[in-house]
Amino acid sequence: MDALVVNPGRRDRVEFVRDHPEPSPAAGEVTIRVELAGICSTDLEIARGYMDFRGVPGHEFVGTVIAGSDSLHGRRVVGEINCVCSACDMCRAGLSGHCRNRTVLGIAGRDGAFAQLLTLPERNCHVVPDEVGDRQAVFVEPLAAAVQVVRQHPVDERTRVAVIGIGRLGSLIAQVLALQGCQLEAIDRNPRALAFAERRGIRAVHADDVVPQAEHDLVVESSGSPAGLDLAVRLVRPRGTIVLKSTYAGVAEVNLAPIVVNEIRLVGNRCGPFPDALELLRAGKVEVAGLVSGEYPLERGVEAFAAAADPQNVKILLRPGPAS
Amino acid sequence: MDALVVNPGRRDRVEFVRDHPEPSPAAGEVTIRVELAGICSTDLEIARGYMDFRGVPGHEFVGTVIAGSDSLHGRRVVGEINCVCSACDMCRAGLSGHCRNRTVLGIAGRDGAFAQLLTLPERNCHVVPDEVGDRQAVFVEPLAAAVQVVRQHPVDERTRVAVIGIGRLGSLIAQVLALQGCQLEAIDRNPRALAFAERRGIRAVHADDVVPQAEHDLVVESSGSPAGLDLAVRLVRPRGTIVLKSTYAGVAEVNLAPIVVNEIRLVGNRCGPFPDALELLRAGKVEVAGLVSGEYPLERGVEAFAAAADPQNVKILLRPGPAS
Repeated sequence: MDALVVNPGRRDRVEFVRDHPEPSPAAGEVTIRVELAGICSTDLEIARGYMDFRGVPGHEFVGTVIAGSDSLHGRRVVGEINCVCSACDMCRAGLSGHCRNRTVLGIAGRDGAFAQLLTLPERNCHVVPDEVGDRQAVFVEPLAAAVQVVRQHPVDERTRVAVIGIGRLGSLIAQVLALQGCQLEAIDRNPRALAFAERRGIRAVHADDVVPQAEHDLVVESSGSPAGLDLAVRLVRPRGTIVLKSTYAGVAEVNLAPIVVNEIRLVGNRCGPFPDALELLRAGKVEVAGLVSGEYPLERGVEAFAAAADPQNVKILLRPGPAS
Repeated sequence: MDALVVNPGRRDRVEFVRDHPEPSPAAGEVTIRVELAGICSTDLEIARGYMDFRGVPGHEFVGTVIAGSDSLHGRRVVGEINCVCSACDMCRAGLSGHCRNRTVLGIAGRDGAFAQLLTLPERNCHVVPDEVGDRQAVFVEPLAAAVQVVRQHPVDERTRVAVIGIGRLGSLIAQVLALQGCQLEAIDRNPRALAFAERRGIRAVHADDVVPQAEHDLVVESSGSPAGLDLAVRLVRPRGTIVLKSTYAGVAEVNLAPIVVNEIRLVGNRCGPFPDALELLRAGKVEVAGLVSGEYPLERGVEAFAAAADPQNVKILLRPGPAS
């Protein structure tokens, strides 16, 4: 089948291949024809060698079940990316997202969505309501991750919140936070990102205009840059919380002293609830159409990765097309 | 008066002077004759330029009130180090330790305890019970900071806890944690520190013998080294907590990816409750005598700082002696 493949040993780490082996579903797994997939920052890091992943990257997708389940056959689905053992201490503690033996679609030990076909456990699949189009459904995975921020850190009208970096993921986080009615500021340098936030009724501030006064209760760092984390430390109030939401490859230089002195909480935050994300899209509460900067056929995947790495773009989509 | 003085402009940053001006008590403040003071890691960092502090360092002390209060006159006291405004948003929110306008004894904007005399607000003082000798009372400030760990992060018999670095502060943290009955391991490289922990009934593990398996619910990083934080990240379980308890001067290189992927909480933790610490010492529940590696008169303060910086030593005390 057609696929994009990452091979850490090669100089050009992402390449398009025509003859990648089709994935074989294990017991309990379905085979899904990928209709549309999205490139996120983690994919860009994986292409640079993050996780030493080799195989097919991609974990944001919407597709159609073509084998492995009577009840889902022919249904349009999105899929949770963690494939878990249900037996380890994490799974038994209800933290299956942290399963000790997990594979993760397109990230760890399992070929992903930048291909014509993928396999996932049937229980990972969520049927997409008819009202939610493919170009919305492809955002379910990152939108679920955005919802996870407010699940781990409930906010209300009194909570002063800043989101640093409102690109692919941050723009979703900002919208989810805005729905909670908190006192929200969205910070970025990209005029388009700032304009998108303003259109959604979110107070948008250029990074150069921020005057940090250690007054925010919650700061979400979704820029993925050390400068973003440094700004977060200066924005957050004593005993406040910084949520780390980006994929950071390699080591970052961090000034730890203010974290100790101000008793700041720095919390990592990853995958979230798909049903909540589907409902937000179905109800039209989160806008994603304005985030799509381009759509490429799979055979132009290398070009698509370059477009996704361009800070002027937000979300780049890939359309594999039917198997020949 | 005699004092040790830090001057960031000088090459030898700590010096002993005979003619340092006596501190002038403001309204509500008492003057305290310092009987005994302790050197901690923050003092060593301050001597290296941390906080750009200039003046008299030192914030761990026991002393006698000689002016400014009828009720405390002649009483032996220890003192909380944050001198606060009671008016800012932090003070009004009950977080006066994070007062926006605070001075901090020997750390920020206020001469400290490595002198014959110091001043503090009367309300900062806690009378030392007769059963608690000077060589115990001088540990109240760091012991209170140790208590703060379990105040912010309650543990019980099921909680698996590691303390990385059981020197000056870590040895107190380990003892406080052990009193809670949690599943505790104390990690260090110093044979004396490990032997002290063993004597206190705490499981002590040499850092080279640790096999991190991401299974600890709570890891307290009190080594102050980037290697300690790196080990903490590998010890803590997904969704677990790392408490940062050291003074970190400058930037540290931190691998943030596992913090995000494993949704780890990294929490700074600073000053704690003096009454709890005094009671632990009064009741004999925490041992501090075995931590004293040496006591120096103030005029040998430069030598005392060098001794405190020697990893073979634990706590070095300073005795100013009476004003002439």
